[in-house]
Amino acid sequence: MVDKKLGGAGLRGQVAGETALCTVGKSGSGLTYYGYDIKELADKVSFEEVAYLLAHGELPNSDQLIAYRGRLKTLRGLPQSLKDVLERIPADAHPMDVMRTGCSFLGNIEGEEDFSQADDKIERLLAAFPSILLYWYRFSHEGVRIETETDDESIGAHFLHLLHDKKPSELHTAVMNTSLILYAEHEFNASTFTARVCASTLSDIFSCVTGAIGSLRGPLHGGANEAAMDLIQDMKDPDHAEKTLMEMLARKEKIMGFGHAVYREFDPRNDIIKEWSEKLAKEFGDSRLYDVSVRCEEVMWREKKLFPNADFFHASAYHYMGIPTKLFTPIFVMSRVTGWTAHVKEQRANNRIIRPSADYTGPAPRKVPALNER
Amino acid sequence: MVDKKLGGAGLRGQVAGETALCTVGKSGSGLTYYGYDIKELADKVSFEEVAYLLAHGELPNSDQLIAYRGRLKTLRGLPQSLKDVLERIPADAHPMDVMRTGCSFLGNIEGEEDFSQADDKIERLLAAFPSILLYWYRFSHEGVRIETETDDESIGAHFLHLLHDKKPSELHTAVMNTSLILYAEHEFNASTFTARVCASTLSDIFSCVTGAIGSLRGPLHGGANEAAMDLIQDMKDPDHAEKTLMEMLARKEKIMGFGHAVYREFDPRNDIIKEWSEKLAKEFGDSRLYDVSVRCEEVMWREKKLFPNADFFHASAYHYMGIPTKLFTPIFVMSRVTGWTAHVKEQRANNRIIRPSADYTGPAPRKVPALNER
Repeated sequence: MVDKKLGGAGLRGQVAGETALCTVGKSGSGLTYYGYDIKELADKVSFEEVAYLLAHGELPNSDQLIAYRGRLKTLRGLPQSLKDVLERIPADAHPMDVMRTGCSFLGNIEGEEDFSQADDKIERLLAAFPSILLYWYRFSHEGVRIETETDDESIGAHFLHLLHDKKPSELHTAVMNTSLILYAEHEFNASTFTARVCASTLSDIFSCVTGAIGSLRGPLHGGANEAAMDLIQDMKDPDHAEKTLMEMLARKEKIMGFGHAVYREFDPRNDIIKEWSEKLAKEFGDSRLYDVSVRCEEVMWREKKLFPNADFFHASAYHYMGIPTKLFTPIFVMSRVTGWTAHVKEQRANNRIIRPSADYTGPAPRKVPALNER
Repeated sequence: MVDKKLGGAGLRGQVAGETALCTVGKSGSGLTYYGYDIKELADKVSFEEVAYLLAHGELPNSDQLIAYRGRLKTLRGLPQSLKDVLERIPADAHPMDVMRTGCSFLGNIEGEEDFSQADDKIERLLAAFPSILLYWYRFSHEGVRIETETDDESIGAHFLHLLHDKKPSELHTAVMNTSLILYAEHEFNASTFTARVCASTLSDIFSCVTGAIGSLRGPLHGGANEAAMDLIQDMKDPDHAEKTLMEMLARKEKIMGFGHAVYREFDPRNDIIKEWSEKLAKEFGDSRLYDVSVRCEEVMWREKKLFPNADFFHASAYHYMGIPTKLFTPIFVMSRVTGWTAHVKEQRANNRIIRPSADYTGPAPRKVPALNER
């Protein structure tokens, strides 16, 4: 990871706006959504309640939640023209390119005509992303045209149902629920900031989300859980994991899934997903991936005082649920669309176009030479 | 236009990085690309030379220019799958959604596998954007499937040829050339900054350009030339123009195409496009649009000390060339892709992920209430 200490580089520590949505790492730790601690949310509510919270600023009451779930269920179908587009994307495409293109295409046929439609479009994207991803995935990889409308209560179950062609277990549904909560929102990270810059021109919400997906695609941002999976999948047992890591550290290689740009002490999401990974390992009947992950955590703390971030134990958890590694980052999209779109609404409510300055380092003024004198 | 004076809002005046590409409004005026003044570039070189300059830092010599033009010519064709996608976008879609989607889709089938391919992908996008736009436009509006490969020497002529189904005149080719030069690059504006934020995650170049198109789509950024056309098209003569403007000013309405966030004295691009608009008016044999535009310029300076920006006389110039108003902002994309992609390369060469901070304005820490207590 490139991390030069340049004055002003990366806008680190510079305030680019206000938000009521989230606190990240105040005094080095902690994560809240609208004042609610991430641990309590993960323990007590569903992802749909978090999605509602981010969209509206308050948790839904019972009636609101029932109505919200009902609306989301009706929005899982894809128009034929979008299916036609997804069928033309080859199996070897980057799944984040599929998400970006599906979102962008939907903007052509179901666009946000004015900002009063924002909440409707947010619900549509939230409900449609698992359908977009898995319609493409199963058509390109298995040659089947799936029905994307299911009666699953939750977005996590809908996703697993489309992937595996059967209703998921309670355990898997619960893990997906928690995972989607953990990834939903994280203040002014690069993809969210992309969405806000786009929103600041008063562009439409499909443009904002399309842009955010493109930024999340970058290996310095999304994709750390895929990199963590690449790291652990060949580790035979904890001792082999330790040996592998020690060799990588000796070669000064970057170990993905550890440390964080903002958190200093620990990532509050790690304990939560780690606990689920352990339960999944027991159910799966093979704890190798969990055990090597635990050893990695111990070694990285002992050697580098680095802690696992949200991504690290996600790798084993997703793998235990039979999710192909290449779909890990698109799941991040299915979740973070709630945070991105909440930031878009917040930017619109108190907007000034985001237009920073640059220090000029180029040539002094010069004359254009004739073509035959160059 | 929302333009609140908030501390830190919009990052105005805050340095977000370095650039060698461009100076905008140093001491209130002037525009240079790699040290060359915009006026001299518009007078002396072709858009392809400017595109090469932005991609490589120096103007091409004769051999380089011939080779560059030759490569661009070979890159105008569209793959069948992309044509299939464009045929599924309805005539009433926003043309910027078409550009965004065409760019995003191309990333699925001709993606940038590593950064060594950047220059090839930049040339591909530069050559393909007129084809993408006009394949969709002529299919959706006229029901014809056009051949997008032509032997026109320039990108401007290629565009006009596809639009009107015949080779353009020398005058129109020259105006398009100048117009594309004027819009090519403008430092850290919102769409370029979007591209740099995306690039800072080390994402691919299709993601960066897709995101930038989404930001340019916003009415506070691109689209001012379309708004200027909407303003002038119903003005019957200069006196009617003056009356219309005075009434709008009395109602404190925003007049699009005047003033600028950075320039304080004048927009250096205005005189250049204004001169071409006058020539086009003479050729066209009806100077109404040019004449009302001149009166608008006089009134706005007299009443508000506001000058026309690059967009204002573009409206009449494009109209005289038979370009539908809805295609004005996509032409901006055809040009600005050169600046966006040059910034992507520059960001990659000295990167730190762009991740600013936010001031928290939300609720204090609170406990999650049970569902039946909300």
